[in-house]
Amino acid sequence: MTFNKRLKAYVEEIDQYLKNALPKEQEIPDVLIQSMEYSVFAGGKRLRPILLLEAIKCIDENKRAQAIPLACALEMIHTYSLIHDDLPAMDNDDFRRGKPTNHKVYGEGMAVLTGDALLNYSFELMLNNVPFNTEREKDNYIRAIQEIAKAAGIFGMIGGQTKDLECENQGLNFETLQYIHSHKTGALIRASLRAGAMCAGANEKQLEALTLFGEKIGLAFQIVDDILDIIGDETKLGKRVGSDDKNKKLTYPSIYGLEESKKMVEELLNEALKAIELFGAKSEFIGELGKFICIRDY
Amino acid sequence: MTFNKRLKAYVEEIDQYLKNALPKEQEIPDVLIQSMEYSVFAGGKRLRPILLLEAIKCIDENKRAQAIPLACALEMIHTYSLIHDDLPAMDNDDFRRGKPTNHKVYGEGMAVLTGDALLNYSFELMLNNVPFNTEREKDNYIRAIQEIAKAAGIFGMIGGQTKDLECENQGLNFETLQYIHSHKTGALIRASLRAGAMCAGANEKQLEALTLFGEKIGLAFQIVDDILDIIGDETKLGKRVGSDDKNKKLTYPSIYGLEESKKMVEELLNEALKAIELFGAKSEFIGELGKFICIRDY
Repeated sequence: MTFNKRLKAYVEEIDQYLKNALPKEQEIPDVLIQSMEYSVFAGGKRLRPILLLEAIKCIDENKRAQAIPLACALEMIHTYSLIHDDLPAMDNDDFRRGKPTNHKVYGEGMAVLTGDALLNYSFELMLNNVPFNTEREKDNYIRAIQEIAKAAGIFGMIGGQTKDLECENQGLNFETLQYIHSHKTGALIRASLRAGAMCAGANEKQLEALTLFGEKIGLAFQIVDDILDIIGDETKLGKRVGSDDKNKKLTYPSIYGLEESKKMVEELLNEALKAIELFGAKSEFIGELGKFICIRDY
Repeated sequence: MTFNKRLKAYVEEIDQYLKNALPKEQEIPDVLIQSMEYSVFAGGKRLRPILLLEAIKCIDENKRAQAIPLACALEMIHTYSLIHDDLPAMDNDDFRRGKPTNHKVYGEGMAVLTGDALLNYSFELMLNNVPFNTEREKDNYIRAIQEIAKAAGIFGMIGGQTKDLECENQGLNFETLQYIHSHKTGALIRASLRAGAMCAGANEKQLEALTLFGEKIGLAFQIVDDILDIIGDETKLGKRVGSDDKNKKLTYPSIYGLEESKKMVEELLNEALKAIELFGAKSEFIGELGKFICIRDY
């Protein structure tokens, strides 16, 4: 099977997990379930769940089933952050992935609650699937939840979102740009790899390798986003091209130029691939995924 | 010491726990920490943490230290829900407890992020304090987190907030009113008692007793709020009196009348006190607290 076919099958698999994971109970207001589903199934790439499951594969494939709630939780956390980010009080985006954003469909109040609901539910999902039977696995699993929680919060994603909001329409220095990148997007990508590794019982060396892969790919992902925002095709991205420029946001291409930025992505990819060499054939797909992230459509 | 003095000392104790629990790291944007602290220390009654610690006292006082992160997390979850509830897209309140609401001070975008931050941090706090050393205590503690997570989310508080938002400016039926009350406020109060009981290793009978106490007090709390909203004194409550009426919200007094509503509170209190009789002297303070909740200022 080609990489693209395998990736498509993977996304469908994750979608099925997410469908099973989302609540169906009668007692919950219908509009809340609908709004959660609307955003969770709005065409996400499922990058974080796939990274987590591939990290598992690198270490111990037998822990895969156990890790599925963690994978779904990562996607829910990512989705909630987009819903809140798109709000008028934040980035004020009307479209995402070519579809109206949550608050355009359900209203601002519901969008706030839907984000809250997804964040809270991601923890419920992870906590309700703690493997109570085996001590070692239980401790590993809890450490994986801790890792995700930290990356999603003030020390990670929310810290990055705050700095981004704080510096909107201001001239950024490069240090601040790096902080925003590594926290707003990088932290959760890094945590996807680390949580997978932890859950599968990785040793120190394995954990370090996957952490490094996550850091390199996470940064590359962001630089690629910056590049695509300049040269990307409006239809493909499903959002206004050049919006970062319009909001006077500092980007890698605006500092280093387009060609140099592309070269940086290439270097980051090479470093990422080198980091996971120790896993041999087990890391084949995750390596392909790294390439896919770095070479998206340009 | 009189009840009021003990309560005041208790609130100060909880405030100190919260001060210790909130993050201080340099790496986090200052404004985020300030905004979190602003709302956490805006004069809350600390009802949920106190209920949790008192539930512990009823079962096994030795588990108290272990439960403090849970107590702080409950208050942070409560605080985040108020910040989001006060947003213009939700209840649009400018004041709470006599102080400007979070979004009036820090702006709407920061208020959204601060709420997210407090919710996420409450889970970080609980998860980072899992007692890994003893199996039994660890499992009890995780079950307590599960209980809090469920009560805070779509099956509890967020479900209630959604229904409340959905039915705004609409005629409510009594069933819907009950759903809103029991979920929006009741669920987290009930969970405070249950999580405390679970963490302390309560048996079935003890857990049931504290659950019942929580349900009765939680409902009474809400009816008292409804009553105070009619007869309360603006300065004491720190918010506009009669705002529920203005928004055409259905309340207990509007259905049953003021006197009958007061009688219902009295009955609920008696049932609550009866439920915890089995704990004898250990439940003295929590019983006093129940009375305090039911007899607030009217």
